[in-house]
Amino acid sequence: MSSLLANIDSPSDLRKLTLEELMQLSEELREFIIYQCSKNPGHLGASLGVIELTVALHYVFDTPGDKLIWDVGHQAYAHKILTGRRDVFSTNRSYGGISGFPKTSESEYDAFGGGHASVSVSAALGIATAAKMQGVRRQAIAVIGDGALGGGVAFEGMNNAGASKANILVVVNDNNMSIDKNVGAVHNYLLKLTTSVRYNKFKAKVWNFFGNNIIRRMVQKFVNTTKIAVLRNSNLFEALGFRYFGPVDGHDIRQLTKTLQALKNIEGPKVLHIITTKGKGYKPAEEDQILWHAPGMYDKETGERLPSGGAARYQDVFGETLIELAIQNPKIIGITPAMPTGCSLNLMMEKMPHRVFDVGIAEQHAVTFSSGLAIAGMVPYCNIYSSFMQRAYDQVIHDVALQNLQVVFCLDRGGLVGEDGATHHGAYDLAYFRCIPNLVIFAPMNEVELRNMLYTAQLPGMHATVIRYPRGCGAGLDWKRPFETIPLGKARRLREGNDLALLSIGDIGNKAAAAIERLAGENISVQHYDMRFLKPIDEAVLHEAGKKFPTVITLENGTVNGGLGGAVSEFFTTHHYTAKIIRMGIPDHFVEHGSIAQLQAQCGFDADSIYHSIKYELGIKN
Amino acid sequence: MSSLLANIDSPSDLRKLTLEELMQLSEELREFIIYQCSKNPGHLGASLGVIELTVALHYVFDTPGDKLIWDVGHQAYAHKILTGRRDVFSTNRSYGGISGFPKTSESEYDAFGGGHASVSVSAALGIATAAKMQGVRRQAIAVIGDGALGGGVAFEGMNNAGASKANILVVVNDNNMSIDKNVGAVHNYLLKLTTSVRYNKFKAKVWNFFGNNIIRRMVQKFVNTTKIAVLRNSNLFEALGFRYFGPVDGHDIRQLTKTLQALKNIEGPKVLHIITTKGKGYKPAEEDQILWHAPGMYDKETGERLPSGGAARYQDVFGETLIELAIQNPKIIGITPAMPTGCSLNLMMEKMPHRVFDVGIAEQHAVTFSSGLAIAGMVPYCNIYSSFMQRAYDQVIHDVALQNLQVVFCLDRGGLVGEDGATHHGAYDLAYFRCIPNLVIFAPMNEVELRNMLYTAQLPGMHATVIRYPRGCGAGLDWKRPFETIPLGKARRLREGNDLALLSIGDIGNKAAAAIERLAGENISVQHYDMRFLKPIDEAVLHEAGKKFPTVITLENGTVNGGLGGAVSEFFTTHHYTAKIIRMGIPDHFVEHGSIAQLQAQCGFDADSIYHSIKYELGIKN
Repeated sequence: MSSLLANIDSPSDLRKLTLEELMQLSEELREFIIYQCSKNPGHLGASLGVIELTVALHYVFDTPGDKLIWDVGHQAYAHKILTGRRDVFSTNRSYGGISGFPKTSESEYDAFGGGHASVSVSAALGIATAAKMQGVRRQAIAVIGDGALGGGVAFEGMNNAGASKANILVVVNDNNMSIDKNVGAVHNYLLKLTTSVRYNKFKAKVWNFFGNNIIRRMVQKFVNTTKIAVLRNSNLFEALGFRYFGPVDGHDIRQLTKTLQALKNIEGPKVLHIITTKGKGYKPAEEDQILWHAPGMYDKETGERLPSGGAARYQDVFGETLIELAIQNPKIIGITPAMPTGCSLNLMMEKMPHRVFDVGIAEQHAVTFSSGLAIAGMVPYCNIYSSFMQRAYDQVIHDVALQNLQVVFCLDRGGLVGEDGATHHGAYDLAYFRCIPNLVIFAPMNEVELRNMLYTAQLPGMHATVIRYPRGCGAGLDWKRPFETIPLGKARRLREGNDLALLSIGDIGNKAAAAIERLAGENISVQHYDMRFLKPIDEAVLHEAGKKFPTVITLENGTVNGGLGGAVSEFFTTHHYTAKIIRMGIPDHFVEHGSIAQLQAQCGFDADSIYHSIKYELGIKN
Repeated sequence: MSSLLANIDSPSDLRKLTLEELMQLSEELREFIIYQCSKNPGHLGASLGVIELTVALHYVFDTPGDKLIWDVGHQAYAHKILTGRRDVFSTNRSYGGISGFPKTSESEYDAFGGGHASVSVSAALGIATAAKMQGVRRQAIAVIGDGALGGGVAFEGMNNAGASKANILVVVNDNNMSIDKNVGAVHNYLLKLTTSVRYNKFKAKVWNFFGNNIIRRMVQKFVNTTKIAVLRNSNLFEALGFRYFGPVDGHDIRQLTKTLQALKNIEGPKVLHIITTKGKGYKPAEEDQILWHAPGMYDKETGERLPSGGAARYQDVFGETLIELAIQNPKIIGITPAMPTGCSLNLMMEKMPHRVFDVGIAEQHAVTFSSGLAIAGMVPYCNIYSSFMQRAYDQVIHDVALQNLQVVFCLDRGGLVGEDGATHHGAYDLAYFRCIPNLVIFAPMNEVELRNMLYTAQLPGMHATVIRYPRGCGAGLDWKRPFETIPLGKARRLREGNDLALLSIGDIGNKAAAAIERLAGENISVQHYDMRFLKPIDEAVLHEAGKKFPTVITLENGTVNGGLGGAVSEFFTTHHYTAKIIRMGIPDHFVEHGSIAQLQAQCGFDADSIYHSIKYELGIKN
């Protein structure tokens, strides 16, 4: 069989194909993605689910003039491959390679970038509105998953779009999954809607039974009159001002292209509801959709996933420790917005299903829901990835900190996250939380510290606590030890030294420790503190360092502006310590994707960079 | 007529009254609130609209055991008066007095605090969930306006609550208004739902016509079978898993108490839809609901509003300037999340209705919608109060800054806002935006600066810009002058001096200028810079100040942590300038309510405090 895919350099090539060839192309695309992702890990499941949709959209619509917006862009692999990036797809998510998400700077076909859920409708509405004002005729199409549809901003977008006359098409890609199983009323609703297809068939049968008689006309009048109350609002989307179409089999190219062609000519806000299977066409991925959302490397033929190995992951230390704590303290509740597996709260979910709440893609609600639990005397542990916590910033301030409630925020994926890149780095949290009163902000240097802070945060009388830890594995310590209370606002002096002081916070301190160890072999002695707390910060330690050292390095896996470096600078200038401070951290520009090691080196805070920077600051030849 | 209100010290007193007395009590409450607000300004309209509801809720439910959560708490005046705060209500929103919003530290009847919209459902769900786990039998009731219902987090809460079996009652207070007229599909939907009551009556008539015959049974089967598809989802709320009741006249105590009594015994998530009139019972307020949302002082008898006077307000400089710019530049669009009057975008709305979008209470959507417009070549001016911008933090990072789009964020109400207090102070914006790459952050010292930056921000090639200005009036300058470009990142040296340097940002610089003028009369010379830009910061000026002065004051109407003080401290320690820095600004705790002048004095940055602080720092006797 000749390869069609090899000859598709842009959607215009694709538009020359027959329907049968589009089907063949879809199979080739599927094969290509499965092969590529087996060697170079990526978001397999979501992308396999929308292959036919992607082909159909590019076939029917006039991209890039028409604008395709992929919600949570990790479903866009087929789109990337079809729009001129087939030959560089092997660099997907790699340092210097293409991004795992749509990115406007990468291709004119990427109409809107990003990797956070639920914003596609708002973006499409903006693009459609601009087109109208500019007198340009173009389609704006948002493809959004049923999970992402539960996010508040998606609803805000639908609510606004539905009331407008804007010409947008929202394709609801209903695969019954986010990364984990979907939850929430909208999810239940979509299930019912799908099921109701058979009722509609029955309805038609009943209707025909009436024939064209007075009763039928009576019923017709009845239906027409109550239309506003019943029929027009018989659908959630129609209640929101959208015309609803579907459900359609999202893997049936014929039906998809036909439906999309028809929709192209219908003005106003429209929803097309399609049913797809996450991981479609790759058996292991269809059978375990959670595992195969982003499976890492695997053997394409056997479906065997290749081990990543190493020490315990921070997320598992969190997940396992929380179970222990929850056994001891009946007030403890676990909360996650759609990330039970990603943050390892699934461990507690299995053991204590009634004490863990997956609230869906709804970070804002997760935080206010936690505050409601806390005000009623529970101790919620609300686990949110650092970069997603940006969604709930106001709720942390307004509903938790202001009311001084004992909510424990566990920020997984703090700092550089690697291959997911700019949209997912947890770079800002230290800075954006430091300015909020009443918060305790802690970052563990290892598994034991994480475990003990999880313990400390639930003790009576604690404030709202932010515990921030990175993606990946810990320091490899034997961490299943008896709990110890961590004294609030107390740093740890890890090593004495005379040449300069290094103040680190969090796991990245281990890189510093390695660099300092190496320097010790060259008779360079660095005093190293693990600050532990950004807030309250250990003032005794800052006085000590300020009095003793003319040069101080601050090190954090977060922005150089406003975080630990900012706190130490403010303290020193206030108390008139005249040390020079070198702030090491994430620089003031967006950092792209690559391995964590590559990115840390790029930002100048891997062990090697720290080693050389210290020598440079001390005027010692490197 | 005897006064009932005088004898109501808690809801238990109220529960002893007859239905007729409850009606009388409502009238007394209304009279009391109208009188109090005429002398001591407050949120009149919303509170007048829910008087009967408040009386009915406290009558039917067992508060404080049952938990009442008032969304956007400014509707809670009657609640405060009935729960022991009648005699201190004259201190409402005053320095040292009671808060204008519910506050858990103020009363056990305030089950959840806050002044930001749309979180009540999530909080109620948290409280209800905790009760269930604790084996406590209690009702959790959220009262939410139809406007706030459009906020994303409200949807997230409904979506989660509807899928749960939680025992919560959401009272949708449908008055067709936010602060301005409501917008959005949900709003349209509620209107239709209300109208549909007459269709339901017709429906019953038709139904009875059929009699109990085979046709009726046939139709019954038809209806039952399609129930899931049609009837159960015939209502937006039922689609979301809630049982829907209403609409009910929210001013009819008899119907309200009867309905609430019935609902008390129905388990699971319930919506009660009530129709109310904002400003109910006070003619001027009913007739102009926008003006009378928070009217300031007025003559109770005539309804004449008392003038506040003074220079032009910053918001009007924004509103009028934007019209001028929009005439020149057809790319300009105005966007507001439900605040056209509050931010003066209503001025442009009147002149150019098609170029202004009120997207409803939906800050997240407002920002992403703006990014969609910008990516399609428009220049959106997105005006959001500083404290509400916290809601859209992720969208600014992820959808605007990361994509480096030319969106102009106009942050009204930056800094201390006065009587609205802790929930509304725009305290954190300088700190939370400074750590984000690609943003230009500017704060004008006066009307002319605001005007010129609004002009500069729309010039080709600009980044995303944040223009942050305070509540209230400008410096009284003649500001309607020809536009001038403000050079990016350039500060202004306002005065030379030798004793110390003061670096201010924004309008608060005028207080410093007054203090410095007064000091000049005592031969104390202060070098004063208006920094203008927090980002990019004027490094030349910082080098100049760093080299010359042993003492530097930074002054901002924002948190002392992380903002201008942080930026200057970081710069000085990096470049090894050894000045002592005094950071003046909002301290690291939540500041309560009071007049802006009182709060600035409390925070130590009114003109008088600045004057004394400078003398103190210079070791000159005050």
